[in-house]
Amino acid sequence: WRSRGKLQIFHYQILKWVLALLVGLIVGLIGFFNNIAVENIAGFKLLLTTNLMLQNRYKAAFLWFISCNAMLAAAAAALCAYFGPAAAGSGIPEVKAYLNGVDAPSILAPSTLFVKIVGSIFGVSAGFVLGKEGPMVHTGACVASFLGQGGSRKYGFTWNWLRWRSALLWRTFSTTAVAAMVLRSLIEYCRSGNCGLFGKGGLIMFDVSSQVTSYTTMDLAAVVLLAIVGGLLGALFNFLLNRILRVYSYINEKGAPYKIILTVVISLVTSCCSFGLPWLTACTPCPPELAASGHCPTIGRSGNFKNFRCPPGQYNAMASLFLNTNDDAIRNLFSGGTESEFGVPMLLAFFTAVYSLGLVTYGVAVPSGLFIPVILSGASFGRLLGKLLGALTGLDTGLFALLGAASFLGGTMRMTVSVCVILLELTNDLLLLPLIMLVLLVSKTVADCFNKGVYEQMVRMKGLPYLEAHAEPCMRSLVAGDVVSAPLIAFSSVESVGTVVDTLRRTGHNGFPVIEDAPFAPEPELCGLVLRSHLLVLLRAKTFTADRVKTGAAEVFRKLAPFDFAKPGSGKGLTVDDLDLTEEEMAMYVDLHPIANRSPYTVVENMSLAKAAVLFRQLGLRHMCVVPRTPGRPPVVGILTRHDFMPGYIRGLFPNVLRE
Amino acid sequence: WRSRGKLQIFHYQILKWVLALLVGLIVGLIGFFNNIAVENIAGFKLLLTTNLMLQNRYKAAFLWFISCNAMLAAAAAALCAYFGPAAAGSGIPEVKAYLNGVDAPSILAPSTLFVKIVGSIFGVSAGFVLGKEGPMVHTGACVASFLGQGGSRKYGFTWNWLRWRSALLWRTFSTTAVAAMVLRSLIEYCRSGNCGLFGKGGLIMFDVSSQVTSYTTMDLAAVVLLAIVGGLLGALFNFLLNRILRVYSYINEKGAPYKIILTVVISLVTSCCSFGLPWLTACTPCPPELAASGHCPTIGRSGNFKNFRCPPGQYNAMASLFLNTNDDAIRNLFSGGTESEFGVPMLLAFFTAVYSLGLVTYGVAVPSGLFIPVILSGASFGRLLGKLLGALTGLDTGLFALLGAASFLGGTMRMTVSVCVILLELTNDLLLLPLIMLVLLVSKTVADCFNKGVYEQMVRMKGLPYLEAHAEPCMRSLVAGDVVSAPLIAFSSVESVGTVVDTLRRTGHNGFPVIEDAPFAPEPELCGLVLRSHLLVLLRAKTFTADRVKTGAAEVFRKLAPFDFAKPGSGKGLTVDDLDLTEEEMAMYVDLHPIANRSPYTVVENMSLAKAAVLFRQLGLRHMCVVPRTPGRPPVVGILTRHDFMPGYIRGLFPNVLRE
Repeated sequence: WRSRGKLQIFHYQILKWVLALLVGLIVGLIGFFNNIAVENIAGFKLLLTTNLMLQNRYKAAFLWFISCNAMLAAAAAALCAYFGPAAAGSGIPEVKAYLNGVDAPSILAPSTLFVKIVGSIFGVSAGFVLGKEGPMVHTGACVASFLGQGGSRKYGFTWNWLRWRSALLWRTFSTTAVAAMVLRSLIEYCRSGNCGLFGKGGLIMFDVSSQVTSYTTMDLAAVVLLAIVGGLLGALFNFLLNRILRVYSYINEKGAPYKIILTVVISLVTSCCSFGLPWLTACTPCPPELAASGHCPTIGRSGNFKNFRCPPGQYNAMASLFLNTNDDAIRNLFSGGTESEFGVPMLLAFFTAVYSLGLVTYGVAVPSGLFIPVILSGASFGRLLGKLLGALTGLDTGLFALLGAASFLGGTMRMTVSVCVILLELTNDLLLLPLIMLVLLVSKTVADCFNKGVYEQMVRMKGLPYLEAHAEPCMRSLVAGDVVSAPLIAFSSVESVGTVVDTLRRTGHNGFPVIEDAPFAPEPELCGLVLRSHLLVLLRAKTFTADRVKTGAAEVFRKLAPFDFAKPGSGKGLTVDDLDLTEEEMAMYVDLHPIANRSPYTVVENMSLAKAAVLFRQLGLRHMCVVPRTPGRPPVVGILTRHDFMPGYIRGLFPNVLRE
Repeated sequence: WRSRGKLQIFHYQILKWVLALLVGLIVGLIGFFNNIAVENIAGFKLLLTTNLMLQNRYKAAFLWFISCNAMLAAAAAALCAYFGPAAAGSGIPEVKAYLNGVDAPSILAPSTLFVKIVGSIFGVSAGFVLGKEGPMVHTGACVASFLGQGGSRKYGFTWNWLRWRSALLWRTFSTTAVAAMVLRSLIEYCRSGNCGLFGKGGLIMFDVSSQVTSYTTMDLAAVVLLAIVGGLLGALFNFLLNRILRVYSYINEKGAPYKIILTVVISLVTSCCSFGLPWLTACTPCPPELAASGHCPTIGRSGNFKNFRCPPGQYNAMASLFLNTNDDAIRNLFSGGTESEFGVPMLLAFFTAVYSLGLVTYGVAVPSGLFIPVILSGASFGRLLGKLLGALTGLDTGLFALLGAASFLGGTMRMTVSVCVILLELTNDLLLLPLIMLVLLVSKTVADCFNKGVYEQMVRMKGLPYLEAHAEPCMRSLVAGDVVSAPLIAFSSVESVGTVVDTLRRTGHNGFPVIEDAPFAPEPELCGLVLRSHLLVLLRAKTFTADRVKTGAAEVFRKLAPFDFAKPGSGKGLTVDDLDLTEEEMAMYVDLHPIANRSPYTVVENMSLAKAAVLFRQLGLRHMCVVPRTPGRPPVVGILTRHDFMPGYIRGLFPNVLRE
């Protein structure tokens, strides 16, 4: 920065904005493409099934339905298993860990992006109980990372959902706005009928009746009861999901074919449920006013009243929910003023089915979001409770469904503010804010008594070194020097090329302290920190000297531009084996001063580990130097990295500390 | 924490929540009281004025109006000048600085709280062009500080406005919800007519027609033009306000009577404008359909069509805006579907008047928010531009007024996300989001080319040491050792009582490094950091020894509980003069080990100052030790405090550095 002119800074600013807008545009386009593909594939599948049913060819319809689902599931699983294993699952834990500073390979690779988009379309179309929101967030992060050439900016994005990161907040805001505007204008275009089977299913926007301005004590008691039970069920969901994922990981580790088989099995179970439960459900007569206007039963298009083996003038309530895309099912559950559409036994059956299917579906090798299953089961639970308490409260069952969804989201995800913003976006009614906040507060508090949020659980299960905002209590009784892992590998400020290359080959460390020693300093002192990637670039430029002298920065930057040290856009960048050094060159010396970070953050070895962890996490460091307390020892005691702050690692070093 | 049981932690958690809810409750009550008082006082004043006008006693009406305003203004100014000088102005800069870590005296004192509430009521009732939102934020912070005994938690609060502080976010969220719910239920109660003149003016909730789902290119161009001009006018507002505040500060420094005179003069000018401008405005015939239904002209109550010296069936447009509370004026400007209510010359006159009055009003010694003046002038500007561009676009002029207000808010305050949330809350329509974001983005960008946001300007003008999120560029070329101010005052780990007392008396420093030296360590080394307040508590307990030996923590904590070291709830706490030590005691020794912070954050003296500033600000430190790079020197070079990072201070030390 110091060496750049105003014009360059201006260019850089413009570039940042253009990039942000471009990310918004592309994510908006992908979101639209995703929606339209799902609506067309799933719509075609459902339309043909319904047509076969109308001809009373039930067996054919069932076979068509089940095989269609299985094929789509197998395709999604095959894509995932062979091309992008990192694309399985929601992607939110990975993005969360990435934003926390974990740069695991392949999280944001282009192959992951491709599989995420296509696999998500197949997975949702296959009728699984899973959502496309988590994958969309991951997709957005991949796009941003791809455009930004390796991770300078990333935007988690789903429908208007803002990730509140203070520094990036404003740019994120406008990116999101662009994506939302692109999506909306395209949907507007499609409304005119240009996009095949694309109905109103693009953006979930629910019309919850909200003209309730005052609540009785009874209403509030019912809502609190709902929130408590929702929190309990959410915590149970997390617990069971954790167990199931452990079992699945054994199966998935056996290889790609096992992944596909597991996926197809779950698909068959889902299809049987979707088709079988409506089969067992009795028909309900249409409300007379709707039957007269031809709105009931609805045939061949998405709607509230599916005719499924029912005589004319009657509808199958279960089919309205199950033989539909998940978005339509949620809309049906949330719709107000339809007290009598779904009965208690039917809602109980649906809730049980969706809750279980959501649990067994998440772990399969398909890009799968958790929002939709949680909202679906929460909404059916809320509606069920609303029906049961109906006599006591004056609240609409649609509102109960919404609050039930809120309680489940609060109970599983625990991201209360984000969830609240999302629910407000979905309902577009700020007057519901107090009730939603109350429900989220209660359900989160109840669930927090039992276990952690579902995403934290997954981050932990995947072994990603996620740094918590608060230090573990055990860290208070330890000091920074306790967890330093010996032995320390350091370089002299002017080091022989052979030593550097050997060290790089021998260890996998990414940062090395540089010690200034004789003849450059009277006593050894800490000069700075060099990164592996910078060392490799410097070695490739071959600015070596025969004697142990400083070359200075000018010499190095005659051959290399600052940009050469930037992180490469894709792949792993240079490795030691890419270097092509002769024996002679190996015996020469290289000056590390020009590439050393001369102001590394340091802590004294007797600094409380908890305080060191706060420093490490707040400043977003990758390496931290531990310096000795007393003089007369080497100037660096060790280097702390992210892994040194993991509770698991500390527990291994000091088995007794963590038990206290 | 380490020594506490689970029950105590549970108690602490419960206490935190109860406190948060209590703060919400009280702030909600104060907000309600504030609203009701303003509505009653201002309503009574306006009602009497209108009645006198109806009797054609114009001179009496004017005299009543102007003297009423002047008296209210004088009362507010006298309160401010004599009881709580810190309560003048918006309060948002102070709260912002407090949250940044500046603990200036009297910002959150109970006297400030009292003056803020009562002064704000008088000020708003006096018909000034000022708002009650800024003072409400300050009031909320004072209440929280008062309840929390000296500042462990504070919540900036105005109508549902969330201050996004990551750690406190969730608790803030629920506090806000409680306050909003209290306010809403009380207003609901008042609707039934139990609170005097309290009309619909409680919460500004605008009905902006939003059924516009698609915009033409022409619409967007008009909106961008509006945003650019709004940004320019906003930047001009900041520039002029800065100048005017400088002039005012000369006047205000002369003493309390001058403050009151200045306030009354501004009040007279405001009254003349409010009464004179409608006087000069011609009457407009009522729209026939409204005249027939008796809605025009409206007499004696708040409404769109004020009859002011007009014959029956006509109304005075200027009076509709000026002879009203500010909230009602904004509602009138925002109302949609009323294209012809206000003419172009009238809007121009109103805009000019409000813009100028807002500028000259803010600096007077009255609790005064900036939101209302900025929204008022922005809305009239937007409506004006909407009228002028009316032929080109299909957008409603009410919508233009809203966007104009957004552009002014973006141009002056630059807090885009908060402003966006507030405007969304006010309009309760998420579909306006893209347009509002576009306007805010453009106007903020335009205004940022000229100067800083109005609150940053004020923080700087008040001389509060506010730490910016990003380090100044000049800090990159300095190191931490450069700004350390000599000489360093340090204590030995076991120090003579006389030395400690003398040092405390001689300097005003709040933190002192403790050096471990012979006989406790072979060579001097940094032991920790002690705070002035902890030293005073320790000295008062008189755990002294005749010889220079360690007493240990057990001895000290036999006499003192950890709670004794907590910051006192009110006042300045202990001072050196409160100590009552004999000559004998002064010759004894005191062990500083038990109260020393053994893990102070340290930086090496050659650490880049910019990096040190990031560390200081991110971790919210008050003191940071600078340690030497090479051995053989004293173990601490100096201490950095907040003031050492202020650009003004650095500029004084290195006049050439900042110019580069």
